[in-house]
Amino acid sequence: MRIMIYINRNDNSALKEQIRQVMAQKIRSGLLLPGQQLPSVRVLANQLRVSLVTVVEAYNLLKQDGLIESCHGKGTFVTSFESTKSREEAILNHSNWQLAIEDYLPQASFWHHNYISLPPEILDLGSASMHHSLLPLSLLSTAIQKGLQEYPKSLSSYSPFSGDSQFLGIIVDYLKGQDLLLNIQQIIVTNGTQQGIDLFARTFLGPGDVVAMETPVFSGAIDAFRLTKTIIQPIPLDREGIRIDILEELSTYMKIKAIYTIPTYQNPTGIIMSLKRRRQLLEFAKQNGILILEDDPCRELNFCEKTKLPPTIKAIDTYGLVVYLKGFSKFLFPGMRLGILVADGTIYNRLLATKSITDLGSSLWLQKILVDFFKQPQLKRHLQKMSRNMEERSQMVFEKLNAKLNPLIYWQRTSGGMFLWITLPPSISADNLIPEAHSRGIHFLPGSIFYPRELGFNHLRICWTNLSDTDLPIALDILCDFLNDAVLKVNF
Amino acid sequence: MRIMIYINRNDNSALKEQIRQVMAQKIRSGLLLPGQQLPSVRVLANQLRVSLVTVVEAYNLLKQDGLIESCHGKGTFVTSFESTKSREEAILNHSNWQLAIEDYLPQASFWHHNYISLPPEILDLGSASMHHSLLPLSLLSTAIQKGLQEYPKSLSSYSPFSGDSQFLGIIVDYLKGQDLLLNIQQIIVTNGTQQGIDLFARTFLGPGDVVAMETPVFSGAIDAFRLTKTIIQPIPLDREGIRIDILEELSTYMKIKAIYTIPTYQNPTGIIMSLKRRRQLLEFAKQNGILILEDDPCRELNFCEKTKLPPTIKAIDTYGLVVYLKGFSKFLFPGMRLGILVADGTIYNRLLATKSITDLGSSLWLQKILVDFFKQPQLKRHLQKMSRNMEERSQMVFEKLNAKLNPLIYWQRTSGGMFLWITLPPSISADNLIPEAHSRGIHFLPGSIFYPRELGFNHLRICWTNLSDTDLPIALDILCDFLNDAVLKVNF
Repeated sequence: MRIMIYINRNDNSALKEQIRQVMAQKIRSGLLLPGQQLPSVRVLANQLRVSLVTVVEAYNLLKQDGLIESCHGKGTFVTSFESTKSREEAILNHSNWQLAIEDYLPQASFWHHNYISLPPEILDLGSASMHHSLLPLSLLSTAIQKGLQEYPKSLSSYSPFSGDSQFLGIIVDYLKGQDLLLNIQQIIVTNGTQQGIDLFARTFLGPGDVVAMETPVFSGAIDAFRLTKTIIQPIPLDREGIRIDILEELSTYMKIKAIYTIPTYQNPTGIIMSLKRRRQLLEFAKQNGILILEDDPCRELNFCEKTKLPPTIKAIDTYGLVVYLKGFSKFLFPGMRLGILVADGTIYNRLLATKSITDLGSSLWLQKILVDFFKQPQLKRHLQKMSRNMEERSQMVFEKLNAKLNPLIYWQRTSGGMFLWITLPPSISADNLIPEAHSRGIHFLPGSIFYPRELGFNHLRICWTNLSDTDLPIALDILCDFLNDAVLKVNF
Repeated sequence: MRIMIYINRNDNSALKEQIRQVMAQKIRSGLLLPGQQLPSVRVLANQLRVSLVTVVEAYNLLKQDGLIESCHGKGTFVTSFESTKSREEAILNHSNWQLAIEDYLPQASFWHHNYISLPPEILDLGSASMHHSLLPLSLLSTAIQKGLQEYPKSLSSYSPFSGDSQFLGIIVDYLKGQDLLLNIQQIIVTNGTQQGIDLFARTFLGPGDVVAMETPVFSGAIDAFRLTKTIIQPIPLDREGIRIDILEELSTYMKIKAIYTIPTYQNPTGIIMSLKRRRQLLEFAKQNGILILEDDPCRELNFCEKTKLPPTIKAIDTYGLVVYLKGFSKFLFPGMRLGILVADGTIYNRLLATKSITDLGSSLWLQKILVDFFKQPQLKRHLQKMSRNMEERSQMVFEKLNAKLNPLIYWQRTSGGMFLWITLPPSISADNLIPEAHSRGIHFLPGSIFYPRELGFNHLRICWTNLSDTDLPIALDILCDFLNDAVLKVNF
């Protein structure tokens, strides 16, 4: 049987490392099943046009990883689970022919599978969302009622591919309030930020291209870029944001095509890129003909009044370099899945082409409802109220962690956003802590998913806006005890 | 500057023909602008690793097409428009650097651009939709009201990536009524059929793969497949559906990976694939390890009671070969953009992985509303009423065309669906008729967009469910006069 592995001979990693990574990802994410037979060394070497030695070494690495095993005389297999149930399922689920259908997936995201199967009784400090008590749901209901009367035909009509012009006009007004001065011909309505990233990736990135990403970074972006087989170049952060000096050094020997950044309340670290660094980034991109994909989900979640946020990179972009993504899921209406993308000139044209091929445009009806929603004067008051609620909540969170967490565990206060990035002593892997965390009744996201290459095991991200006012302190108590225990275990 | 052209050396068409087609598509769809300079022959030959002669011949063909022109001593340019306005726009819109950013788009669909700029006073016989008077809008309003009370939290929560289990359960019940017996683990909620096609294409098709498509065929599918650079193999239809004999012959010398079909009320021809042909198609696919992508948008639009439709191919698929797409946009709620995809085993797993990477799941709120909508007993009565309305309408349409159209113009009655496929004498190009049609106040879709390779100019598709009861006969009168005039012009 053939397994689709894409080898990039331009990539600096050793070939055996590439093979190992891709197969490890496929196994961990369930695309290769326990007990499934793998190609022989000879067959795989032939298929990939690499030496036998390369495949032997890749297989040895995977055996060390515990992911594959040899059965003498029979061949090499994905390590099977203890339970016979999984084996039977694997056999019953499909005949061999289905597995022989090659696909273009480098990895079904490991964490996605985790997320899907989370039992309801577990207190979820992992997923990025706002508790419904913090959201303007009554305002939304009102807008929906109104929309039903005012725009009945919007249920029966399609949106233009770039979006409804009335809704686009509302967005233009909304973004003016953030010093972003646009016209509607620069905006495309999307089904949320993730689609925005995916559209950008599909349109501009492919094998041989390089996308630079701050790391750690939003895992959904890693997934979307991986799907295009572009090379992902991680760039470290410091307290002012992405390291320009490292970008400059890299660009002396590689052609970077695009840079992905979340400059305000970076996910997961919470860092705010300074104005100076934003300007430097723009200049760097201009000199090298690089596109910037700016993702801005959390700007509205600034709950500390003293903090004045720098302008968006898009607001100071006079070159048309920046593709700007705004999602409303985090702070307005997660259940609706609508967002916008801003771009210029032929960059815009091409993104619009991809959008139309992908889904023929977003829901007209949702856009019409939101026209009314954004017009409501109470919206501004709501956002202020949400800010105050979040500030109270954050105080409780910071005080508790400050009081309870072992000093060997590092974290930092933020002035906004919804995440905390927690760093454990280097020998502890957050991935390995997940089963124990679940048995104690909480969930968080392991830091490894925020790195495109396998680093960062000793970090974790928590979202502190997800739970109710009652559940949150309980979950945090459990978290602190749990992490403290993990640290103590190591020290003995 | 570099233009991204992907040459497929496995494709049978001559290389110069490929270059010509790709550049023609880019020019027609606005991705290359009027007056824009093209690479020199030497540079392009170098970039594509083809001979100089090949590029010279490709450029000559494009000059014959009127799409490019040489300026002696200056180079080769996209033919500029008469108006200086376009030229200035081209210069002002972007600096050279934006054009130097390569993309992966083979074509922004030509017809999409047409569609976007349709003036409101033109009677649209082109776009595939139902007039709001035919849709169950009041039922939808009721469901929305109810949903607001019953599921307020769905506005603030995300859907699982495969969809909300309650909604999936409703879908299982709904499809039972079409003899499709499924469990919810086989279903993924999508943002409509177009996304379903796009997910399938991205997951399974790429350069070197072959997808066989009935032709003429839904242009959205052509676009989605083109984006992956898969080879599109057109397969003719006869009155029973896709030509199995041709598929069998082709498969003796090419490996077909997937077959795309709309077996019931095929878009645009209206043909219904016979049960016998469906079985043959399944057997053929089984023997050759080929996936079938079955698109089923119009099954509910069967308005002729005497006609009993054959089962879906999915319903008789015991092998797990078929990926089945159902959209609700055509007959229930175009403005909402929701649909479903059905698949089995690891085919399902991989499509789900792509779906989650693409947009993190469809709107939970929309799904919850539709739970109530599908539960309503009035829905069945509505569908029957819609059927009767459509039957009346179709009678009017068929009688008018029968009475008025020149006998040299060929068309055929259907028992369902919303389209008519009209065939003109071979020397008439429907694309060339569009400007005149607009000046007379109507729009239709030219047949060329339904063919992946440039054929079929003498066809056009009309949709007769789009206009009001008042506008439709007016539009049809104009259409008949207009087409008759075109035919007469040729004969003199």
